[in-house]
Amino acid sequence: MRETLDFLLHDWLDVATLLQRPRFADHSRETFAQVLDSCERIAREKFAPFNRLSDTEEPQVVQGPDGERVHLPRATHEALAAYAASGMLAAAQDCELGGMQLPCVIEMAANAFFSKASVAMGGYAMLTAGNASLLLAHGTPAQREVFARNELTGRWFGTMCLSEPQAGSSLSDIATRAVADGSDFEVDPLGPRYRLRGNKMWISGGEHEITENIVHLVLAKIPGPDGRTVAGAKGISLFVVPKQMVDDQGRLTGERNDVALAGLNHKLGYRGTSNTLLNFGEGRFPVRGGTGAIGYRVGAPGEGLRCMFHMMNEARIAVGLGAVMLGYAGYEASLGYARQRPQGRPVTDGGKDAAAPQVPIIEHADVRRMLLAQKAYVEGGLALALYCARLVDEQATGEAPAAAEAGLLLELLTPIAKSWPSEWCLEANSLAIQVLGGYGYTRDYPVEQYWRDNRLNMIHEGTHGIQALDLLGRKVVMKGGAGLALLAARVNATIQRAGQQPGLAEHGVALAAALQKLGAATKSAWATGVPAEALANATPYLQAFGHVVLAWVWLDVALAAQRGLDVALAASGEAPLQAGKRAAMCYFYAYELPRIAAWLDVVARREALPREMRDEWF
Amino acid sequence: MRETLDFLLHDWLDVATLLQRPRFADHSRETFAQVLDSCERIAREKFAPFNRLSDTEEPQVVQGPDGERVHLPRATHEALAAYAASGMLAAAQDCELGGMQLPCVIEMAANAFFSKASVAMGGYAMLTAGNASLLLAHGTPAQREVFARNELTGRWFGTMCLSEPQAGSSLSDIATRAVADGSDFEVDPLGPRYRLRGNKMWISGGEHEITENIVHLVLAKIPGPDGRTVAGAKGISLFVVPKQMVDDQGRLTGERNDVALAGLNHKLGYRGTSNTLLNFGEGRFPVRGGTGAIGYRVGAPGEGLRCMFHMMNEARIAVGLGAVMLGYAGYEASLGYARQRPQGRPVTDGGKDAAAPQVPIIEHADVRRMLLAQKAYVEGGLALALYCARLVDEQATGEAPAAAEAGLLLELLTPIAKSWPSEWCLEANSLAIQVLGGYGYTRDYPVEQYWRDNRLNMIHEGTHGIQALDLLGRKVVMKGGAGLALLAARVNATIQRAGQQPGLAEHGVALAAALQKLGAATKSAWATGVPAEALANATPYLQAFGHVVLAWVWLDVALAAQRGLDVALAASGEAPLQAGKRAAMCYFYAYELPRIAAWLDVVARREALPREMRDEWF
Repeated sequence: MRETLDFLLHDWLDVATLLQRPRFADHSRETFAQVLDSCERIAREKFAPFNRLSDTEEPQVVQGPDGERVHLPRATHEALAAYAASGMLAAAQDCELGGMQLPCVIEMAANAFFSKASVAMGGYAMLTAGNASLLLAHGTPAQREVFARNELTGRWFGTMCLSEPQAGSSLSDIATRAVADGSDFEVDPLGPRYRLRGNKMWISGGEHEITENIVHLVLAKIPGPDGRTVAGAKGISLFVVPKQMVDDQGRLTGERNDVALAGLNHKLGYRGTSNTLLNFGEGRFPVRGGTGAIGYRVGAPGEGLRCMFHMMNEARIAVGLGAVMLGYAGYEASLGYARQRPQGRPVTDGGKDAAAPQVPIIEHADVRRMLLAQKAYVEGGLALALYCARLVDEQATGEAPAAAEAGLLLELLTPIAKSWPSEWCLEANSLAIQVLGGYGYTRDYPVEQYWRDNRLNMIHEGTHGIQALDLLGRKVVMKGGAGLALLAARVNATIQRAGQQPGLAEHGVALAAALQKLGAATKSAWATGVPAEALANATPYLQAFGHVVLAWVWLDVALAAQRGLDVALAASGEAPLQAGKRAAMCYFYAYELPRIAAWLDVVARREALPREMRDEWF
Repeated sequence: MRETLDFLLHDWLDVATLLQRPRFADHSRETFAQVLDSCERIAREKFAPFNRLSDTEEPQVVQGPDGERVHLPRATHEALAAYAASGMLAAAQDCELGGMQLPCVIEMAANAFFSKASVAMGGYAMLTAGNASLLLAHGTPAQREVFARNELTGRWFGTMCLSEPQAGSSLSDIATRAVADGSDFEVDPLGPRYRLRGNKMWISGGEHEITENIVHLVLAKIPGPDGRTVAGAKGISLFVVPKQMVDDQGRLTGERNDVALAGLNHKLGYRGTSNTLLNFGEGRFPVRGGTGAIGYRVGAPGEGLRCMFHMMNEARIAVGLGAVMLGYAGYEASLGYARQRPQGRPVTDGGKDAAAPQVPIIEHADVRRMLLAQKAYVEGGLALALYCARLVDEQATGEAPAAAEAGLLLELLTPIAKSWPSEWCLEANSLAIQVLGGYGYTRDYPVEQYWRDNRLNMIHEGTHGIQALDLLGRKVVMKGGAGLALLAARVNATIQRAGQQPGLAEHGVALAAALQKLGAATKSAWATGVPAEALANATPYLQAFGHVVLAWVWLDVALAAQRGLDVALAASGEAPLQAGKRAAMCYFYAYELPRIAAWLDVVARREALPREMRDEWF
């Protein structure tokens, strides 16, 4: 994987160009490599060997002196200590905050090693880094200093508390309430002080003993004087709610805040990440003589969702990249197995010779097909995630028009970066099981765990259906379709370059046809202007859109590979890495891209069946 | 599900016509219904409530006085006792053997309830019934009397011991040996007596204490005088090897045979079925003063695979039906959830009204799409399995030309009946998880277990790749393509009937085009006559073939539903069950059938990539 990562970062994305930007001026290709080396090593030594353990010894509730605690294996503590010590929690932050001021694309590439080694153990760190970033963007100076900085060093970990038992995908229906705490609530050094009451569901890392404190970021509604709250997203505000109370110097005061563990969710996978139901302010741990958990508002009232979703693009790319890396882990495991497992004999014209020795199963065409599919899914997914991370960097540090363009393209591509790997790298994991056969179905091999872990990614951080509505209902129509037009321009530029390469021109033609079909379907979907009609087939649209984007990414990657192939050819040598990229691209165009026709058909004719199906017919 | 089952059996397959056949003359529509009622009740009371328990309390090895034993929950013992008491182990056997002489189609329909309630607990019974059937077909009178009859009553259970650690899909490479036991080996009342030595892997039900004895059917090779064995399938013979030795009256002699538990496989799913590695004749339990486990040959030497595969069509249909019923269980669970879970609001022209109450998620088009897909997969899969079971009955009890035709069609359809539900009802289980969202990912709901259980079905009883080679390499070319021609004739008959129905004619046209495309791709695949070229894309071919078969099945089912719809219309009433069948058919034609183009493209042009991909390019 490292070779592919380096190829994508340097030969394809040319990340060295970022070094010319002031923000990254202290870096070099060498410092980038050192970060990757270091993360690869920590992941290999501290995470990968314990990934199965984190699954079998799943988080357990134990009774402590101050309520229930969650017990995790020692290895999880040690792995996360090593992660914190590496400085990666602050990888992209300013140097003056103790950060490394790395580009997002390098940060994501480095974190990919942890997702591959143990996505569940890595979860605590990803959440903490995201939590701290949010506070740095929207918190008061004291909130940044007290909460964010202690998260960046790994002294405290963080969570995101959005969902509630009765409100999963529909955040506007959350019922947690926040009321001003005392008449002096506005002059607390840690920010406007409130009392929160409510239940939060699916909170990853919501309870553990890895760190001395946990910093919860909580969405809640502030009722008006009449006790009523504003309906919809506008009624939602954001609060920072520490598990242990702290003073304005970041010292624990010894008071426990009223945040109580109400239960652990027992999951199909991702078991190493504790996932909790938390009760805020139920009176279990009365604090400072009042009722309700104490929280400090972040940002203005009613701005909670906006603040929370500030980091959404990066969070969704990270989820997509996590899905990719699970797929990658399965791909490598099944490739290794296929190379050493003897079974059966090749098909020949004269049938099979039962007396001949068995061959490694990688010699069977169907096994190679399954490995090729995995390669196309996971390397393509990795390329897409890195491309999007590179857009984050461009948006943050590029020149004005390029930065705006990057931001627009990022908005459009984020639902794909999140959803596509969640679906297809899960399929890669299933193929990895299939390559291993009965062994793949046992817990003696890692592939079944990857498959279980990966199933979450189509659900959390916005389900497939939510991503689809976001794409077709919002992103492709925003600004008069400017995002889609921009993507089309980029795709066409790739097609043009491919047209000048004898071996790639035909793929450019196929991509042009696919792009045309996608554009036409988008228009047809919205032809009546009725959202219910357009959006009834948003998910097939998302699937087709994703496959077109990946076909584009693969053709662009193949163009970068072509340079290496040409050099090797001129020297009468070989370039197996580049040849592999070209083969994976060919696989995608032969086996995958043609799927879009079936998906786009129903979109284009606004197939009414899902709307017209009646309950009693099921 | 019962309503759909009755509709398919009576309104579609018209199973009452079987009552005119001598073998089933003592039955009636009422006796068929009684069997279904009774199985439905036992499955509901004794299996379903303990399905999760059988997963969480997976089989454990405990030390017993005579070696390791496998402990199972008490509920598994009780469920299987109830199953045996129902007489279902001998459901299809002759009355004189204590059987019910039921048609295969009714036996399979009745067993479907157990697969739906707990596929893993039901596994022991399915294996035992298959084992007994095989002995009845190929055993000596004494083997039938001693072994098969005690299995039919549930006094003993049975296994199938085929695979070995070094030989999974490639049975010709098994290394277990059988040598004649003494000079009197041919005159043992239980059949020619041999000593077996070797290791058998993936043996379901290989050790347990549900019954006092376990009857293993074991494949092994008999070496010649030079110590060498015949290569390939022709060298394989079949043996019955009891765990506890018995006399010719079926009494336990008190001697333990040398069959030792070498370990349990810890699986992703199907955990309630113990799955074992067994050592035969390693000397752990020396028996009768010699070395090697004692086994009695069944059938002639070298005929082992032929005997074992005698029941293969039925076993494969049963695996497919098991996959269907897991899908069905998930469909019903997610449908129930979708009807009661409030979340979000419908999309309207004016956007969403956040103040309006939330609606049950079944009102969202995307949720209905996911439920429709599940319905199309699981009801279509059920229809296919029952159709194939009906072919088994036709082959066994029909008039000469019809029986031969049924046999031919059954040969062709078996790989589809096994593989299609394994793939698409697994997808149904994934959609069920998606409908439940985060809850679906937890062990508080059953859908994640169904998904785990179902993943096995693409692997055991012949992997997807093996089914694909069987279909394209053998079944469609056998007898000059007679099977495919017969299928085409049946499909065309359905198309013709659909052509006379205003609402169905267009689907008939689509099916005709699909059939034509399938036929053309079959010809192209074999155009060069080179097996390696034809078979490199056997799996996409299998997928496309399966979708065409299901489109045919659905159109034929819709024709049966049309009669009910016409009757209801004439009476100004409604026929929701039939309307649902029509909707599922429409779903299949709109969303599923168009997928075949992408699969058949690579088949038709004999896409060479899987053959040409080089190891070092991965």
